[in-house]
Amino acid sequence: MEFDTIVAISTPMGEGAIAIVRLSGDDAINISDRLFKGVGGKRLTDVMSHTIHYGHMVDPKTGQIAEEVMVSVMKGPKTFTKEDVVEINCHGGLVSVNRVLQLVLNQGARLAEPGEFTKRAFLNGRIDLSQAEAVIDLIRAKTDRAMNVALGQMDGRLSRLIRRLRQEILETLAHVEVNIDYPEYDDVEEMTHKMLLERSKSVKDEIEKLLQTSQQGKILREGLSTVIVGRPNVGKSSLLNSLVQENKAIVTDIPGTTRDVIEEYVNVRGVPLRLLDTAGIRETEDIVERIGVERSRQVLKEADLILLVLNYSDILTEEDKNLFKAVEGMDVIVIVNKTDLPKKMDMDELKDLAKGYKIVTTSLKEDQGIDELEEAISSLFFSGAIEAGDMTYVSNSRHIALLNQAHHAIEEAITGVEAGTPIDIVQIDLTRSWELLGEIIGDSVHESLIDQLFSQFCLGK
Amino acid sequence: MEFDTIVAISTPMGEGAIAIVRLSGDDAINISDRLFKGVGGKRLTDVMSHTIHYGHMVDPKTGQIAEEVMVSVMKGPKTFTKEDVVEINCHGGLVSVNRVLQLVLNQGARLAEPGEFTKRAFLNGRIDLSQAEAVIDLIRAKTDRAMNVALGQMDGRLSRLIRRLRQEILETLAHVEVNIDYPEYDDVEEMTHKMLLERSKSVKDEIEKLLQTSQQGKILREGLSTVIVGRPNVGKSSLLNSLVQENKAIVTDIPGTTRDVIEEYVNVRGVPLRLLDTAGIRETEDIVERIGVERSRQVLKEADLILLVLNYSDILTEEDKNLFKAVEGMDVIVIVNKTDLPKKMDMDELKDLAKGYKIVTTSLKEDQGIDELEEAISSLFFSGAIEAGDMTYVSNSRHIALLNQAHHAIEEAITGVEAGTPIDIVQIDLTRSWELLGEIIGDSVHESLIDQLFSQFCLGK
Repeated sequence: MEFDTIVAISTPMGEGAIAIVRLSGDDAINISDRLFKGVGGKRLTDVMSHTIHYGHMVDPKTGQIAEEVMVSVMKGPKTFTKEDVVEINCHGGLVSVNRVLQLVLNQGARLAEPGEFTKRAFLNGRIDLSQAEAVIDLIRAKTDRAMNVALGQMDGRLSRLIRRLRQEILETLAHVEVNIDYPEYDDVEEMTHKMLLERSKSVKDEIEKLLQTSQQGKILREGLSTVIVGRPNVGKSSLLNSLVQENKAIVTDIPGTTRDVIEEYVNVRGVPLRLLDTAGIRETEDIVERIGVERSRQVLKEADLILLVLNYSDILTEEDKNLFKAVEGMDVIVIVNKTDLPKKMDMDELKDLAKGYKIVTTSLKEDQGIDELEEAISSLFFSGAIEAGDMTYVSNSRHIALLNQAHHAIEEAITGVEAGTPIDIVQIDLTRSWELLGEIIGDSVHESLIDQLFSQFCLGK
Repeated sequence: MEFDTIVAISTPMGEGAIAIVRLSGDDAINISDRLFKGVGGKRLTDVMSHTIHYGHMVDPKTGQIAEEVMVSVMKGPKTFTKEDVVEINCHGGLVSVNRVLQLVLNQGARLAEPGEFTKRAFLNGRIDLSQAEAVIDLIRAKTDRAMNVALGQMDGRLSRLIRRLRQEILETLAHVEVNIDYPEYDDVEEMTHKMLLERSKSVKDEIEKLLQTSQQGKILREGLSTVIVGRPNVGKSSLLNSLVQENKAIVTDIPGTTRDVIEEYVNVRGVPLRLLDTAGIRETEDIVERIGVERSRQVLKEADLILLVLNYSDILTEEDKNLFKAVEGMDVIVIVNKTDLPKKMDMDELKDLAKGYKIVTTSLKEDQGIDELEEAISSLFFSGAIEAGDMTYVSNSRHIALLNQAHHAIEEAITGVEAGTPIDIVQIDLTRSWELLGEIIGDSVHESLIDQLFSQFCLGK
């Protein structure tokens, strides 16, 4: 395909040692060359691919030196986008990098949209859609495990599996076609049904296996939204601090939003906990007072995991019991804190209330029980399976939704065969599942969806 | 010189398209090679200098792929540090870049201190101290003009001037030495005095010329600390907003500090205004009520420029008069706002109060008078001279202090000669000025000062 030449700042904004202005497109090298003044009059149009050149950016209008740079020239197709790519490394100041960007724009390059470099890698056929989506997952990964899932997906692990399933469906359909074309044999219809059933069930099983990884994959990718609830003074702040201190907290800015939006991530044994409303806990310790208030209900609703904190040195109050009601049906770990103080809690009453929830006793003050809590969090969602590093995880909501739809279509096909539905109706269901799987890797997908997917990327990627 | 191999993340922290892990030192290529798995078993130890290589970082302990990377290999001495330099470009996520950094550290590289790459460029003799200092000025530059000053200094413009002055002093001293050694001639003493006076005065003049650029240079480098004062409701917030909207506001994080510290810069015709206590104005509009409070006095004291806002549609009050007293002796521009409303202010009374301060009338509501205000700000500090793009500015406080001391030493020498002080005493003063100038370019400078200077850099530079 032929595209215009795009440019963007590819390093995070802020003062740093190095910033990169990246160009991609047919004109990338020409544009850079017009701005570049190398040692001894070297021209970027003459250099070998994948080489680095020291020099200055010069404003052609004034002839003045604009910046000292190192320019990397990479000729397509062996580049990120399969197009000619130039990376201009400049000193990492705001004025500096904007000045270089401006010069490149003045020479006719267009400012890239978010994700447009990766989009070109996809449109030019270097990677498929699920691989492209893995690129942004990789950047956003909050833990090592999440990054490994993204790396695997980027490497095409999921794509290969999906391609194999589609191939099986396609072969099944071809087989049916052949059988229909030669109806002279006696047992053709029976054979066709048998083959259809067997193959469809095999594909269905594989999709189910993949879907089984999706809960864990989604948690690895997006983090486990976690809310800490409990009456005042039971130790919610202490719990928060313990989790943050024991594990390196990852505080991230959400790019493109205001500075106010902060998410706090804590990495618990490879499980990224996304702590919700921590500001609220930190500042006021009043979340329990707001139970019943719409906003708190909303926060609870969004949570994947509730850490419900109780006071070992107090009886179970009405408030505690209301909390149990509020979190009914959710994934809850009960934390009985303050075991350093005299026991007042009736543990049998608690066990009745907790109805099978995991109960962990802690003395956060004396650093007791944190290990057990982390173990409980980890094993609640990852019953050992996470350790298998080579597994293919589905982690992306879009993929999960498509797999569910494909699964549904296959089930329809199976039910149809079993009910003796005419083969051409069954074929439609099978074809539908083949198409749905294709959307995962971008084989059959609408342009508007592609635009929307890549718009979630950061600038310069 | 021989150093160990250092490594750091050289791009700003945060999620971005690309992050760079940079290594410098004898072992940089070997370390990278042990982690790198290129296409077809390519070894980084075999590649040509200044070439780029696609591949994966692999954890040698587990054999697992850790990240997809592009590795730039640059062999010394034609590098930023004059040492072997390797830049590992990885996907710009926090986990990703930290993982690559950790692998490199595990292979025996040492985490670089802030500014250590630039420090090596200095210690290895690629650049002198004033050039190294310009590197950080360039990164921190808030306006184009500030960046040009830094670029000029980085290019060695200041260094060349300082070297020439030192050479003149050295030649003068040599001349004196020769004359002292041949005292048989009659008029030697008189000739020596005359030569000394002439040459010393010439050097002194040049230092003075340089010092004359220092106020402007310092403003370009550090910004003009600006405070907006005025009674409530005179339009302080509107003024702030006008300045920020008309000119692109530059909000910067101060690296290494908490998120709370925000400085807001506004670029007014190339003059970077650093707006102090803008949060205060934005939130409460109460700075005037706090005049007299210690903190407000402190803010005023730090200011290079006061924008004193008055209400055209009101009489001058006691509060206004107190404000004039509070800013006495400072650089003030008086802004008479709300000219869209009926006039009540006695302009003659104002002129008496304002004692020669520039007075600008505005209607911020109707966008009137902003141009005139910007002109007033610009001309108050840069009476045209700034337009001469090729001037050598001194902008760094350390340089300014050293120039002042050198100037003082030269003056002592001149006074000495004129008073008939023995030549060897004059020689001491001249030698002292030669040494002081040498400190600017780092020819004679203490290690502790060097450490302190480079510690102000960002990590990875």
